[in-house]
Amino acid sequence: MKLPAIFGKYRTEIDVELKSVLAGRQSPLYNMMRYHFGWIDEQGSSRPNSSGKALRPTLCLLACEVAGGDYSRALPVAAAVELVHNFSLIHDDIQDDDRERRHNPTVWCIWGKPQAINAGSAMRTLASMALSRLKEYGVSLQKQLCVQQLIDESSLRLIEGQYLDISYESRLDIGVNDYMEMIEKKTATLIASSLEIGALLGTDDESVIIGLRDIGRNLGLAFQVRDDILGIWGDEVKTGKPLGGDIRRRKKTLPIVYALENGNDGLRRELVNVYQNGAFNDDGVAVVLSILDAVGAQRQTQRVVEKYCNEALAGIKKLELVPSRKQDLEELIYFLVKRNY
Amino acid sequence: MKLPAIFGKYRTEIDVELKSVLAGRQSPLYNMMRYHFGWIDEQGSSRPNSSGKALRPTLCLLACEVAGGDYSRALPVAAAVELVHNFSLIHDDIQDDDRERRHNPTVWCIWGKPQAINAGSAMRTLASMALSRLKEYGVSLQKQLCVQQLIDESSLRLIEGQYLDISYESRLDIGVNDYMEMIEKKTATLIASSLEIGALLGTDDESVIIGLRDIGRNLGLAFQVRDDILGIWGDEVKTGKPLGGDIRRRKKTLPIVYALENGNDGLRRELVNVYQNGAFNDDGVAVVLSILDAVGAQRQTQRVVEKYCNEALAGIKKLELVPSRKQDLEELIYFLVKRNY
Repeated sequence: MKLPAIFGKYRTEIDVELKSVLAGRQSPLYNMMRYHFGWIDEQGSSRPNSSGKALRPTLCLLACEVAGGDYSRALPVAAAVELVHNFSLIHDDIQDDDRERRHNPTVWCIWGKPQAINAGSAMRTLASMALSRLKEYGVSLQKQLCVQQLIDESSLRLIEGQYLDISYESRLDIGVNDYMEMIEKKTATLIASSLEIGALLGTDDESVIIGLRDIGRNLGLAFQVRDDILGIWGDEVKTGKPLGGDIRRRKKTLPIVYALENGNDGLRRELVNVYQNGAFNDDGVAVVLSILDAVGAQRQTQRVVEKYCNEALAGIKKLELVPSRKQDLEELIYFLVKRNY
Repeated sequence: MKLPAIFGKYRTEIDVELKSVLAGRQSPLYNMMRYHFGWIDEQGSSRPNSSGKALRPTLCLLACEVAGGDYSRALPVAAAVELVHNFSLIHDDIQDDDRERRHNPTVWCIWGKPQAINAGSAMRTLASMALSRLKEYGVSLQKQLCVQQLIDESSLRLIEGQYLDISYESRLDIGVNDYMEMIEKKTATLIASSLEIGALLGTDDESVIIGLRDIGRNLGLAFQVRDDILGIWGDEVKTGKPLGGDIRRRKKTLPIVYALENGNDGLRRELVNVYQNGAFNDDGVAVVLSILDAVGAQRQTQRVVEKYCNEALAGIKKLELVPSRKQDLEELIYFLVKRNY
C-alpha cells in the first residue's frame, strides 16, 4: 500500500525546513534528535532516508493550499508540528519502556533515559523556535502570536492525553467515553491544529479555518483508532512496532475497551483475569486476542475508523476549497482508513 | 540569615500570577505541579506556604523597576521564568534519581517517573502560555514575540547545560572551563534572561537591557558556585538538600573540579580512585571531603562567588538606574554571596 502522492510532494521541503531548525547546533543533544529522525545512525554517520510519514506537516501544508494559500508560508509550522509530535514520541518511548521504534533502538535505549528526557524537552523548545521563520514569509505579528498559542495549547492537550493514557494502564474501568477523551487529547488535537494553522496561513476566512480544524479532529480520531488496530493486528515488519506490544503494556486501546464494555460476563471476567495476573506472557496475549476475536473487536473498531473518516469527508464537502487540493485531501483520508503502516 | 526585603515585596503577586496560570486546569497533571510548588500536599489539601525563594521572578520584576518601569507589566514573565526553572527541577529530580526536595518527596517519587516527565513538560508549555497575559498590560506585539524568543532560547541553553551536567558525571577529565560552560548554560542564562526581559519591559534603552543581562549572567554564575558550596558544606536543614548528595551523584561541582585541577598528584590519584570505585559509601564521601579540605577548595570557590558578585556590582555602577531599586539589587547581590540556603 503506497503513500498518497501528496506525501511525496512536500517531503523534501519538510526535511529541509526541519534540518534548518537543527542546523549549526553542536551539542550532542541535537545528534540524539538527528538520530531519532533517521538522518544519522548512532555513530553519527548520515543515513539515506528520513523515517516516519510526516503526516502532521503534510496535513498542515495541504490545509494551507486547500484554503487557497501558498504552502511555503506554512513550512515553519510544518516543522513545528513535526517537532512537537516527535518530542512526544521520544518521551513516550521512555515512559513506556519501549526499546524499539521504526526498527531501530529508541533514543533512551542508546543514550539512557536522563539524556533522552533532555532530547525530548529540547525538541519541544525547538518547535517554538521554528516558528520564528514565519516573519521571513511576511506573516503578520498578530498571526505569529496566534500560531504560537495554538502550538502551545495543542502541546498541553497532548501531554494531558499522555497523562490519561498512562493512568489508564493500571485501570480496567475504562469506557469508550474515557477512551475518546484520551485520544482526542493525545492525538486528535495536534492533528486538528496542524490543519487549523495551515489554513490560518492560507486564508482569513474563519469558516474555512474552523472547518479544516474540525476535519483534522475527525481525521485524528480515525488515525488513532486505526493505529490501535495496527498495534494489535498489524504486520510488525510494516508498522515497525512489536506485535502485541500494546496488549503487553496494558494500553486501553479501543479494541480492548470495546471488549471490556461489550463482552459477555464470562469473556469480561477472563479479560480482567489476564490483566490482573501480574506480568504478561505470550499465552496471556493469545487469550486477549481470542477474546477480542470473540467479541468482533477488530470489525467494530474499524467501523469507528470509517465513521470518523466519513465525517471528515462530509466536512470537506461543506467548505469552499481549492478543487485540486481537495482531491488530495480526500485521497489522504481514504488512505488513512485502510493504511497498514 | 534573612532574605532581603525585596523578595517579600513581590512574593504575593508572583504567587497570584503563577496560580492564575494554573487556575481552572482540572487534569491531575496540574495537581502534581501545585504539589511541586508547595501549594497542596500529596492528597490535594492546601498548604499554608509556597516553597522556594522565587529568585528568578524577583530578579525579573526588580530589573523592570530598576530600569524605570512599572514592575506589574513584567508579572507574566516572572511567572514564565519560574515555570521554566521548576520544569527543569522536576525533570532534574527524575534524571538524578533524587527522592527529596525542600524536605518533601519529589514529584516522581510520589507519582512515578512517567507521569513526572509529563508534569515537567506541561509546566514548560505553561511557561509560554503565561506570556499571553503580556497583551493585557499593553506590551507591543513586537516585544511579546521578542520575550517569547528569549524564553525559548534560554530554555534551550538550560537543557544543553543539563545535558553537560549529566554527561560530566561519568567523566573525570573536567576542567574549570568545561565547568564554566556547563553552569553558564544550566544556570546563568535563565537568570540573565530574567533580568534582560524584565528590563526590556521597563525601558527601550538598549544599553540598560544589555547591561542588566550581563549583571544577571554574573549573578547566575555566582549563584551556582555558591550552590555548589552549599551542596557540600551547607546545613541540610536550611538547604533542604541531603548532605553529600552532590558528591555521591558524582557531580562535577566547582570544588571537585578545583581539586582535580589543583590537587597534587597523590591527592588527585586518591580522588580519582574514590570515583572509580563503584558505589559511593559514607567513607568515600569522607575521603572526598578531606581532599577538598587539603586543597582549600571551599575558600577558593568562595573567592569565585565573590569575583562574579563583584563584577555584577561593578556592572550596576556603570548603568543609569532608579536609585532606590539599585540599592535593592545591590542588597540582593550581597545576600547571594553569603547565603546559606
